[in-house]
Amino acid sequence: MDEDFLLHNDIARHLYHDYAKPLPIIDYHCHLSAKDIFMDVKFDNLGQIWFGGRQADGSYSGDHYKWRLMRSAGVPEESITGSDDELSRFKQFADALTLAIGNPMYHWCNLELKRYFGIDEPLSPVNAEDIWNKCNEILRDDDMSVRNLIRRSNVAFIGTTDDPTDDLKWHIKIGEDHEFKCEVRPSFRPDKAISIDKPGFAEYIDKLSDVTGIKIDSTADVIEALMQRLIFFKQNGCVAADHGLDYIPHKEISVEACDKIFVKAMAGGAITADEADGYKTTVLTALAKAYHKNDIVMKLHYSTLRNVNARMYDRLGPDTGYDVMAQNMCAGNLIRLLSKLDETDELPRTVIFSLNPTDNALIDTLIGAFQSSDVPGKIQHGPAWWFNDSKYGMEEQLKSMASLTVLGNFIGMLTDSRSFLSYTRHEYFRRILCNLIGKWVCDGEYPNDDLMLRRLTEGISYYNAKRYFGI
Amino acid sequence: MDEDFLLHNDIARHLYHDYAKPLPIIDYHCHLSAKDIFMDVKFDNLGQIWFGGRQADGSYSGDHYKWRLMRSAGVPEESITGSDDELSRFKQFADALTLAIGNPMYHWCNLELKRYFGIDEPLSPVNAEDIWNKCNEILRDDDMSVRNLIRRSNVAFIGTTDDPTDDLKWHIKIGEDHEFKCEVRPSFRPDKAISIDKPGFAEYIDKLSDVTGIKIDSTADVIEALMQRLIFFKQNGCVAADHGLDYIPHKEISVEACDKIFVKAMAGGAITADEADGYKTTVLTALAKAYHKNDIVMKLHYSTLRNVNARMYDRLGPDTGYDVMAQNMCAGNLIRLLSKLDETDELPRTVIFSLNPTDNALIDTLIGAFQSSDVPGKIQHGPAWWFNDSKYGMEEQLKSMASLTVLGNFIGMLTDSRSFLSYTRHEYFRRILCNLIGKWVCDGEYPNDDLMLRRLTEGISYYNAKRYFGI
Amino acid sequence: MDEDFLLHNDIARHLYHDYAKPLPIIDYHCHLSAKDIFMDVKFDNLGQIWFGGRQADGSYSGDHYKWRLMRSAGVPEESITGSDDELSRFKQFADALTLAIGNPMYHWCNLELKRYFGIDEPLSPVNAEDIWNKCNEILRDDDMSVRNLIRRSNVAFIGTTDDPTDDLKWHIKIGEDHEFKCEVRPSFRPDKAISIDKPGFAEYIDKLSDVTGIKIDSTADVIEALMQRLIFFKQNGCVAADHGLDYIPHKEISVEACDKIFVKAMAGGAITADEADGYKTTVLTALAKAYHKNDIVMKLHYSTLRNVNARMYDRLGPDTGYDVMAQNMCAGNLIRLLSKLDETDELPRTVIFSLNPTDNALIDTLIGAFQSSDVPGKIQHGPAWWFNDSKYGMEEQLKSMASLTVLGNFIGMLTDSRSFLSYTRHEYFRRILCNLIGKWVCDGEYPNDDLMLRRLTEGISYYNAKRYFGI
Repeated sequence: MDEDFLLHNDIARHLYHDYAKPLPIIDYHCHLSAKDIFMDVKFDNLGQIWFGGRQADGSYSGDHYKWRLMRSAGVPEESITGSDDELSRFKQFADALTLAIGNPMYHWCNLELKRYFGIDEPLSPVNAEDIWNKCNEILRDDDMSVRNLIRRSNVAFIGTTDDPTDDLKWHIKIGEDHEFKCEVRPSFRPDKAISIDKPGFAEYIDKLSDVTGIKIDSTADVIEALMQRLIFFKQNGCVAADHGLDYIPHKEISVEACDKIFVKAMAGGAITADEADGYKTTVLTALAKAYHKNDIVMKLHYSTLRNVNARMYDRLGPDTGYDVMAQNMCAGNLIRLLSKLDETDELPRTVIFSLNPTDNALIDTLIGAFQSSDVPGKIQHGPAWWFNDSKYGMEEQLKSMASLTVLGNFIGMLTDSRSFLSYTRHEYFRRILCNLIGKWVCDGEYPNDDLMLRRLTEGISYYNAKRYFGI
Repeated sequence: MDEDFLLHNDIARHLYHDYAKPLPIIDYHCHLSAKDIFMDVKFDNLGQIWFGGRQADGSYSGDHYKWRLMRSAGVPEESITGSDDELSRFKQFADALTLAIGNPMYHWCNLELKRYFGIDEPLSPVNAEDIWNKCNEILRDDDMSVRNLIRRSNVAFIGTTDDPTDDLKWHIKIGEDHEFKCEVRPSFRPDKAISIDKPGFAEYIDKLSDVTGIKIDSTADVIEALMQRLIFFKQNGCVAADHGLDYIPHKEISVEACDKIFVKAMAGGAITADEADGYKTTVLTALAKAYHKNDIVMKLHYSTLRNVNARMYDRLGPDTGYDVMAQNMCAGNLIRLLSKLDETDELPRTVIFSLNPTDNALIDTLIGAFQSSDVPGKIQHGPAWWFNDSKYGMEEQLKSMASLTVLGNFIGMLTDSRSFLSYTRHEYFRRILCNLIGKWVCDGEYPNDDLMLRRLTEGISYYNAKRYFGI
Repeated sequence: MDEDFLLHNDIARHLYHDYAKPLPIIDYHCHLSAKDIFMDVKFDNLGQIWFGGRQADGSYSGDHYKWRLMRSAGVPEESITGSDDELSRFKQFADALTLAIGNPMYHWCNLELKRYFGIDEPLSPVNAEDIWNKCNEILRDDDMSVRNLIRRSNVAFIGTTDDPTDDLKWHIKIGEDHEFKCEVRPSFRPDKAISIDKPGFAEYIDKLSDVTGIKIDSTADVIEALMQRLIFFKQNGCVAADHGLDYIPHKEISVEACDKIFVKAMAGGAITADEADGYKTTVLTALAKAYHKNDIVMKLHYSTLRNVNARMYDRLGPDTGYDVMAQNMCAGNLIRLLSKLDETDELPRTVIFSLNPTDNALIDTLIGAFQSSDVPGKIQHGPAWWFNDSKYGMEEQLKSMASLTVLGNFIGMLTDSRSFLSYTRHEYFRRILCNLIGKWVCDGEYPNDDLMLRRLTEGISYYNAKRYFGI
């Protein structure tokens, strides 16, 4: 993992070192805490950043990619999310990691150790204790506070993920601090107002009512309340909304039918799949139109099955490493949604992410049917997401996008991360991108024209996202 | 893009230059106009060949691959299919093209410029105007008439795509002209007689009735009329039929049930999806049996969603760049169809194309279950089609076919094109094929036996298709 | 195909020759006959081993991969499974094989000729007769008996596939012969007791009743009888059970409902798809719990469509080369099954195989949600199975597994074969594995640390399976 890690030809090395590497990072989708950024938190040890675990309120939160890796290596749960001592956990993780050849975790972890802690040797059970001690010493440094990590990573923009009922207090405070140059912006994530078929829906609607002061008795009221919050978000810098959906629904129903479903759900009645689709379609469509009107980008994430292990869900709760790619047949729904919005010229800029990589080619053709001159690449295939965010996953997606779309307009990478060390994923992506472009040029598939190559590389690394999000 | 473009090893270069390149082209499926060929049309400028646009009758027709590329790059529709001047369109296209690294369009366009116009530099915004002028000058040359383009491309066979009601006037005239050596043959495409659930069905059946003089009151009458036309097509050189299907239906119903559905459709009644499947299965099965009896190859194209953008469909009509890969679950239907036909020994030679590349492996195993000694590779997986016709798409399909079938019997490439310059796609395919075979040999996966390699290369480039279509 | 076949870098060569190659083979899933092993059968000619054909009882049995290849090359059925002379069949196969560039059959066949018969030249129509004669001469050697082939192949463990009603006579006899060092163990394959919707179900249940002495009037009785046989199998060395399913069902129904369905089926009544799913889920769940209790590994094979060619099924019966990958949407069912078993801590070690490679990524994420510290990699993605057992198929799966799981815990290859020569498939797999690992190291994606590389290579080649199956 030297300076030329993953860069296997001269052009790749030139493009990366001279064009991609110096550019700031636009991390337009992540799960960082604005509070932690404002408070400029520091960490006691590497375990806190890398693993997390049981929180003060009894919930579990942390890097579930790492938890999953350890479970796959046969590490007992007690040593993962239990009360085992942190050094022991770190050592067991180091052992599991050396078995994970080809896994992005191997590269991410070692890149993080190198970039932020100056560790040159790959982590292994042999050196785990030394590395643990060295890292924890370095973490005492002010240089390793959250804000300094962001500064050192050359991050220009952070798009967090926020509930519409959030008061955005921390975003506002960060915005008032003109010393801190990175833009930290909220993203509007109204999943709880849409998931009519999930537990807690009625309670959430009540909360939304409280926050907005709007009495919510109908779907129209839900939408009105969300609109109010969207405007508030926009006033506080929001440029994007985000939807996490198991699959894309599309069932058009009447206002009356939708209201009946809503009233039933609020009364605790059981909602059928069809009813849920009807309500979701109504609200999602209304929101999409509002995004268009307010110049907000819509991100759609789908094809997930979450919390599939019932026993562990009971024990640890959500986001603890028990999610799976879904099989889906919802491309038709997605297409109908986009077409419907486009018919009345209310289709917002849209970024589409499916967790199942077998959808890549389909999405790459689908987006081509809804482009317009609003912005180059108005409808985007989001970068390789979550499980697909591996060298193999990214390369396969980039090849599909190149073959089927205009790759030069791609808005590039995001971290989707909960960790302040994960900016090396942008480095990882840029290296893979430059290597692929360089290979195409070396293979004679694209001319060695430096101006053109620079435009491609810098665009995908930075400028396209800047233009797309209007930053 | 020199002589060894895409040929990365000595064996590849030898196979391409000595065996593949000199062979004539059999373009067994395209959308060229027989009239244009007979009339030996010439073009005013490159825009006419490359872009097309609004026709005299108000419809839109042209290279929608290029339109789609420009839309993806944010070019306004007015500059694509509108009345913007052609040089400006060409310049905007050139700019979009340089962003389309890895897209087959990049290679197709530059190969066309090189082979037909002697342009050695890749097209870019910088040289677009010079290239435009140079090409238009060259287009004045008689050498650039349709027939001369075909001659210069060494095309031995062209299979056009024709409606059963077509009088084949232009095919007949071309056949009578013994000066022109290329065989231009009609293909029988009865989609309109099958699409009982699409607008215009009843009108089409009336037209079929007029053309055949058969009063059409039942499904049997439809089939009789189609048989009459099939015989007429065969008498005029047709060797293949072609079906464009969203998905493969297979629902066996009684004659009486089918007739009820037909009568309802003719009276303008709404047809359910199940009813449509029943009618389609009846007619498709009858036609397949007729193909077998008349020694006609059956091509099945499926897994498409066409005209998905309702707004643009209203404005521009079909075939304007708004089609998408479909998700489908119809492999079981396809299998039932083939098995049913095989049971009575009425399965014709069949070429299967799915637009969704996730079907590759499935099709490659499916065809193996219906082979026979009628002809080597009786049931074929058609070459990488439409969106899949990229270097990446072709390589992935070739690797799947090699792993799961007997690649040496593959009937190879077609253009599926509306342009007289697109024969470079055969060159593109042959280069990719030779490179892959050469790589396997260099990697020690297949012996460097020139006789065997020649047989493979020449077979897939030319002789297999010649044998398969009985040309 | 020299010593370094498929090994394209120094590390690959070192890992293969020094670590992978010397290790014994654990062939934990195959279709070999224990009787043939006990009897130490010898073969009259290569055709007997390579092709098989019509058996004494009129059924057809043999290497249907080879039959399929010949059919795809247009060889008449008479020359494949008919009474054509064997040399002529061999010559036609040789010709077909030379057209099958990129097909694993090409490598398998030539590796078998090299390892067991010392043939260095690749088989071709030119040398077919010489090779035929030479092989048949060598087959007379005692060295070429079944047991000697197994010994020479360094096979430590063979897991056959056996019906619960089998008396395991031959396994017991082999076990008593302490001269023969290879462990030959039965696997429990209760498909016939589960396939309530297939012909012969009632007859099979009667047979199960006879063998166990249990009167079977209910689902509980079926399960009791299977339990008795499972214990018997375990007493005779069984470490794994195996299920061949078209798709994974999961429909939970009451005991009463299930018994009604069972009684109906026993009386010859027609069973709906939903009813079949209910019964299958009941029995499969009960068996899975028994596997967990008895420390038996559960292998699930699914996504197959078998015997799709009705005409040839009538003529030749099952397992004659007419099977196809299925499309399926059953990932949700599989997840529910695993979660349900895990909830009560009754989830056995499970190996999941789908015949459709588009499921690779999904399975690789799915297994990560059900791991535990019972054993590293408790839930496994089975190696590239059947149609996927090609260089391309294995590499694609290994890359997916590496990206999404902890590859170092993978239990590695099996033959799934009916032939005593097929152990070269383990060589094929190990070469491909070492080459891929070597490439990652050469590309700087994993450190060149010999201890770590040895652990990975030896683990996947041998030790992981040894640990996993408790051998």
